[in-house]
Amino acid sequence: MKNDCSYIGCKQDFIDAKEKVTGKAKYLDDMNFPGMLYAKILRSPHPHARILSIDVSKAEGLSGVKAVITAKDCPTNKFGMEIDDVTMLAIDKVRYVGDEIAAVAADSEEAAEEAIKLIDVKYELLDVVDDVEKAMLPESALVHENIKSNIVKEYHISRGNVDEDFSKCDYVFESEFSTHRVSGCYMEPFGAVVKWEENGRLTIWTGLQSVFQGRNEIAKALGIEPSKVTVKSPYIGGAFGAKIWIRNFHPIVAVLAKKADAPVKYVLTREEEMLTTRPRVAPKIKIKLGMMKDGTLVCKESKIIADNGAYSWAAPKVLLNMSIRTDCLYRFKSTKTDSYLVYTNLIPTSGFRGYGNSQMHFALESFIDTCARRIGLDPVDVKIKNAIRQGDCTLHGWKVRSCGLAECLEKAREYIEEDRLPKEGQNGRIRRGIGVACMNHVSGNRGGDKFDGSSAMIRIHEDGKVFVFSGESDMGQGAKTVFAQIAAEVLGVSISDITVMPLDTDVSPFGLGTYSSRVTTVGGKAVYLAAEKVKKQIMEFASKILGKSEDKLYIKNGNIVFTEDESVNITLKKLCQEGIRTREAIPFTVYETYDPPTEGADANFYGDYSSAYTYGAHGVEVEVDTLTGQVKVLRVIAAHDVGKVINKNGVEGQINGGVAQGIGWTLYENMVFQDGKPLSNSLKNYILMTIKDMPEIKSVIVETNDPIGPFGAKGIGEPTLIPTAPAIANAIEDAIGVRIKDLPITSEKVFWAIKEKEEGDRQ
Amino acid sequence: MKNDCSYIGCKQDFIDAKEKVTGKAKYLDDMNFPGMLYAKILRSPHPHARILSIDVSKAEGLSGVKAVITAKDCPTNKFGMEIDDVTMLAIDKVRYVGDEIAAVAADSEEAAEEAIKLIDVKYELLDVVDDVEKAMLPESALVHENIKSNIVKEYHISRGNVDEDFSKCDYVFESEFSTHRVSGCYMEPFGAVVKWEENGRLTIWTGLQSVFQGRNEIAKALGIEPSKVTVKSPYIGGAFGAKIWIRNFHPIVAVLAKKADAPVKYVLTREEEMLTTRPRVAPKIKIKLGMMKDGTLVCKESKIIADNGAYSWAAPKVLLNMSIRTDCLYRFKSTKTDSYLVYTNLIPTSGFRGYGNSQMHFALESFIDTCARRIGLDPVDVKIKNAIRQGDCTLHGWKVRSCGLAECLEKAREYIEEDRLPKEGQNGRIRRGIGVACMNHVSGNRGGDKFDGSSAMIRIHEDGKVFVFSGESDMGQGAKTVFAQIAAEVLGVSISDITVMPLDTDVSPFGLGTYSSRVTTVGGKAVYLAAEKVKKQIMEFASKILGKSEDKLYIKNGNIVFTEDESVNITLKKLCQEGIRTREAIPFTVYETYDPPTEGADANFYGDYSSAYTYGAHGVEVEVDTLTGQVKVLRVIAAHDVGKVINKNGVEGQINGGVAQGIGWTLYENMVFQDGKPLSNSLKNYILMTIKDMPEIKSVIVETNDPIGPFGAKGIGEPTLIPTAPAIANAIEDAIGVRIKDLPITSEKVFWAIKEKEEGDRQ
Repeated sequence: MKNDCSYIGCKQDFIDAKEKVTGKAKYLDDMNFPGMLYAKILRSPHPHARILSIDVSKAEGLSGVKAVITAKDCPTNKFGMEIDDVTMLAIDKVRYVGDEIAAVAADSEEAAEEAIKLIDVKYELLDVVDDVEKAMLPESALVHENIKSNIVKEYHISRGNVDEDFSKCDYVFESEFSTHRVSGCYMEPFGAVVKWEENGRLTIWTGLQSVFQGRNEIAKALGIEPSKVTVKSPYIGGAFGAKIWIRNFHPIVAVLAKKADAPVKYVLTREEEMLTTRPRVAPKIKIKLGMMKDGTLVCKESKIIADNGAYSWAAPKVLLNMSIRTDCLYRFKSTKTDSYLVYTNLIPTSGFRGYGNSQMHFALESFIDTCARRIGLDPVDVKIKNAIRQGDCTLHGWKVRSCGLAECLEKAREYIEEDRLPKEGQNGRIRRGIGVACMNHVSGNRGGDKFDGSSAMIRIHEDGKVFVFSGESDMGQGAKTVFAQIAAEVLGVSISDITVMPLDTDVSPFGLGTYSSRVTTVGGKAVYLAAEKVKKQIMEFASKILGKSEDKLYIKNGNIVFTEDESVNITLKKLCQEGIRTREAIPFTVYETYDPPTEGADANFYGDYSSAYTYGAHGVEVEVDTLTGQVKVLRVIAAHDVGKVINKNGVEGQINGGVAQGIGWTLYENMVFQDGKPLSNSLKNYILMTIKDMPEIKSVIVETNDPIGPFGAKGIGEPTLIPTAPAIANAIEDAIGVRIKDLPITSEKVFWAIKEKEEGDRQ
Repeated sequence: MKNDCSYIGCKQDFIDAKEKVTGKAKYLDDMNFPGMLYAKILRSPHPHARILSIDVSKAEGLSGVKAVITAKDCPTNKFGMEIDDVTMLAIDKVRYVGDEIAAVAADSEEAAEEAIKLIDVKYELLDVVDDVEKAMLPESALVHENIKSNIVKEYHISRGNVDEDFSKCDYVFESEFSTHRVSGCYMEPFGAVVKWEENGRLTIWTGLQSVFQGRNEIAKALGIEPSKVTVKSPYIGGAFGAKIWIRNFHPIVAVLAKKADAPVKYVLTREEEMLTTRPRVAPKIKIKLGMMKDGTLVCKESKIIADNGAYSWAAPKVLLNMSIRTDCLYRFKSTKTDSYLVYTNLIPTSGFRGYGNSQMHFALESFIDTCARRIGLDPVDVKIKNAIRQGDCTLHGWKVRSCGLAECLEKAREYIEEDRLPKEGQNGRIRRGIGVACMNHVSGNRGGDKFDGSSAMIRIHEDGKVFVFSGESDMGQGAKTVFAQIAAEVLGVSISDITVMPLDTDVSPFGLGTYSSRVTTVGGKAVYLAAEKVKKQIMEFASKILGKSEDKLYIKNGNIVFTEDESVNITLKKLCQEGIRTREAIPFTVYETYDPPTEGADANFYGDYSSAYTYGAHGVEVEVDTLTGQVKVLRVIAAHDVGKVINKNGVEGQINGGVAQGIGWTLYENMVFQDGKPLSNSLKNYILMTIKDMPEIKSVIVETNDPIGPFGAKGIGEPTLIPTAPAIANAIEDAIGVRIKDLPITSEKVFWAIKEKEEGDRQ
């Protein structure tokens, strides 16, 4: 039992660590019901084709098959996130390789798999739209005929007068960058177990990041009332944004379960994950930067064309983030962005850790580095000079209540320089370099005038044990542990006395879910306030029972003590028994809703919409093999302004994971397509980083004590991945003098860039 | 959808009727888990024996057997209700036929059954204690050696000076009555499915009337913290008091599940139900009554010796009720009761619908009838003359805030006389008679200074649908429907928009459970208050959204309307979406605890401990076959003061069921023992009433609008059974002039009483 020491800022083991490491924790695929069936989905092998006919008769005749469905068996409601362009199963047309056509429930996975193969679909192949710029041309084939254009969304956002400002700059630079599709590759494939209850309600177990959002989307797809759907979340083995929203399979499995009149399980294979997991939005970014001789960053203009894929999920929001956030990293005088999101016949993209901010940071943080070098300034000096500071209001209206950006840049540079390896290899085959890049991000992101808060319920049982209910998911990042720490700290009890309850939309208080790095800040604050509220009830009742005034009482180790005489005390357990079993009837159950004191953005996307803005900088040292072009990351310094550490283990875990995923994105991972067909459909042909590739990572935690977050904390989920790619690109330029502007930075690209530079040098 | 008409007082179909009548409702035995095992329990064949040895080796060796346990595998914590005299499995001694000795979990019921037979137990038989009066003698064998006496509990309660009062009475009568053991015989046998969760928590599905009480008792038996146990309740197929407390099998199955490391199901066979279901406490009652010539009831003295059986559950409380409640039926000047509860080697008795009050009413309501006849007065006139009235404070301190006793008596007499059959058969073989008896009871019963309230949580979802959470069980009586009606009425929404959530101790608000006819009054009031509270939030928010003052708004059919212009309105659904999704962030989730404004009884059992006292009277017409002694109930008038009807279907259902069970208790049912061994161990040798024996029942509902209960309602669960037995006995005396004073009133007893009377008449 923890004693005097505070739970805030300590290295707290995750409260569910034991179940997880002993293999006892129940993930979705561990769930089974008597009579449960297994589902499989027939997916399109073509990127773009008209469906001429579907014959399911052979599949239906197969032994063990209990239900076969096509679009004819499903509600035709279109659904989606901002744009409803999705149907549960394909009607008339398929739009990407992996698009859902039919589904089977059978009493074994094998029978379901076999039945899928027996479904006979006749197609008429259509022109494949797989290039965003061509897709924007009027003569392009249309992915969605009813929409009459492949442009899903466009933004035109300007602040100040960039044209005037560019005309006054000492330097104006322009360049183009691009980033690519990568897959979430979380350990646990997505899936659902679905059961229709005897009272007509639908229960669905699935590892969604946002259970309430999911409940509403499933209900919408099925055409039923949201409160008829219960979403329950088992343990989740990673998500990274790809499990925020439902997939088609959620309502598909519900329709199968209804038709088969039995519970149905569906878990994606890794191949299906590769084919259908919402990957990172892939943009082409033109960027123009206006600077003064002294390094002042004056203005910035961007044009972004991003590939949405075949259906629209979070990509419009991702594009919006790309169009705004990096403008708030520095004290620009003016900015202007024109951005376009385009349908193609590729896998639908969506939000992935960083949510657009990572892509745009790659462009800007690479480009400033290049520009600074070109005018003979130290890139990091330029960044520090221009960095947003506490008290600033950015061009887009962000009110910066706490900011460790400059400090993170300084620390990243200091530590990456301090231990850098000898440069002696510099003129041989192997060359070394260091690079630094910084980032900003949000902790929650209010959409318009919408709620951006969270709710928490705390219940204290008769034995003094505390149950915490939140509507926010723990997808493995440790949210439950953070909530338990906050409740333990506020209530003055041992963390072992706290149980954080599993998610269940019937019971869990309303929350928006785990995205925008909002859970600690917003969900944690709701828990904090609920704990404060129940503590007040506890202290009031203890005051009555002990006959001492409240301000003379404190709780420590689950014991309420009179300050002036420690022998006058009562344990929380005893008090709860008194409270629940006596006439006082204190419920010791509280419900608290918190919505941060921020504004939603206005129609022009201006506003202070996040409760806390986060900052960080990575310093990277790389080694480049000039013969092969292979890049190896040797060391990473990851300095992050987290406001205040709640769980040091959690923060370091996020940093380690974010850096690893950032390096993977930069150097290794890539979803490759040929004529719209995915070539990367397994972990054999999609390269994930392994432990052998991992560099040494030094976490540098900067605490700025945010005035809003609980105990001063800010989000750290996404930030840790954002500056890695540009820091690596900057280090490569430092090492070999070439600039790679399109991700991933493969050996081939580096090799040819070196060759090109050598050609140039020779000329 | 219900429109203008109120939900209160209507004939509302039970909200779960459809699931139940279509067989879809999931009862305990419908629950199955993959890998689930089946438990069987080895029970003592002897009423009293020392266990010399238990050999489980053969059982353990049987194929399919996964765990065998004896007392050695179990915590030795004694548990129980007021007196902890129970161990999970027998240690050293068995104390009744059915006492638990060992248990097996196996992969089939058959294997478990077979294994039970292979357990070899050696016994040394001990003297059987099966007569309460002999058991009280010092020389009796002891059921519990450590307690040194077979007297479990005794009460000596007196008000006023009975000796003085008897000396002044015109008449003093004395007599003796007795009632017998009967079994609950609910449709669904008791049982549990038990599962240890991966985080060390225990989940137990079981149809308990009191889930929180059960949770605490199971935890106590297992020696773990209550909050580590989750009790969930599936549908319950009847209980009648026998499922208020846990049985030994609850912790036994938990120990088996732990040892076998698998979920385990245990459902009692009907024979086990007969052997181990807590039957009604069987007392011998000496009663002495002092009356004046004008029929004034002056004083009453009683001596009760009641059979507790082998272990103590609710029998001490049942005895207490016997010792008090009927004193509050009439305006006695003084009363005195000496009562004793005695251990025997028979099945443990406990609380059963009426909870002691039915037994004592049989004695008193029979006896007053006899006494009135003896002094030439009309028994009903005597009862009405002496009846407690609104505004009275009884001898034991009950403050009678509403009372329809006299009215019930009048109506019962009026209607039973009005339609009575021709008396012509009166001197032939078949004779007819009518009888009336009345009753009182409580709606909740505060123990000492303890909480006697209930809590409710109401949550309104984003689609405007209402979820009601209560900690009180619906054991089939329709509590869920009553809660839904109350919430619908207060909130002004359709009952179809309300879901009453299943019981789950992790989530359901704290409640004491379903006993003492308290659920509508106390649980319903908590729902009422929670609904009022959430309605206030709704109206406040609607006022803000509509820009109209709250007092000018009302809700009807789920729509909030401006009184002055009905076109100004907003649906609850729209409001909830506004509330949850906008910055207002209204939680629309409330938690309310209600504890009625009553006092607990003091150490001398004096106090106003129930929120509402209920009254009723039954008029009965019988036909007696003087040749065989067979009694047939022809008609029953059941007049009950329910305060205010919430659900007319529910009230009439309670009346029909209570009368049926009352007739069964009076005429048919009887648990017979021989040398401590039960002869009635199945429904073949234990006679339940069938539909063919059912008389016509006329329900007469008297509404007295109790000032405390929700909408004025009082409890009706138990009262309906209480006056039936004495009304039948009174009708028999009316028909044939004989008085049967010991239940059941079998044909044999009537036959011999007739013979005896004829002998007397001839002398």
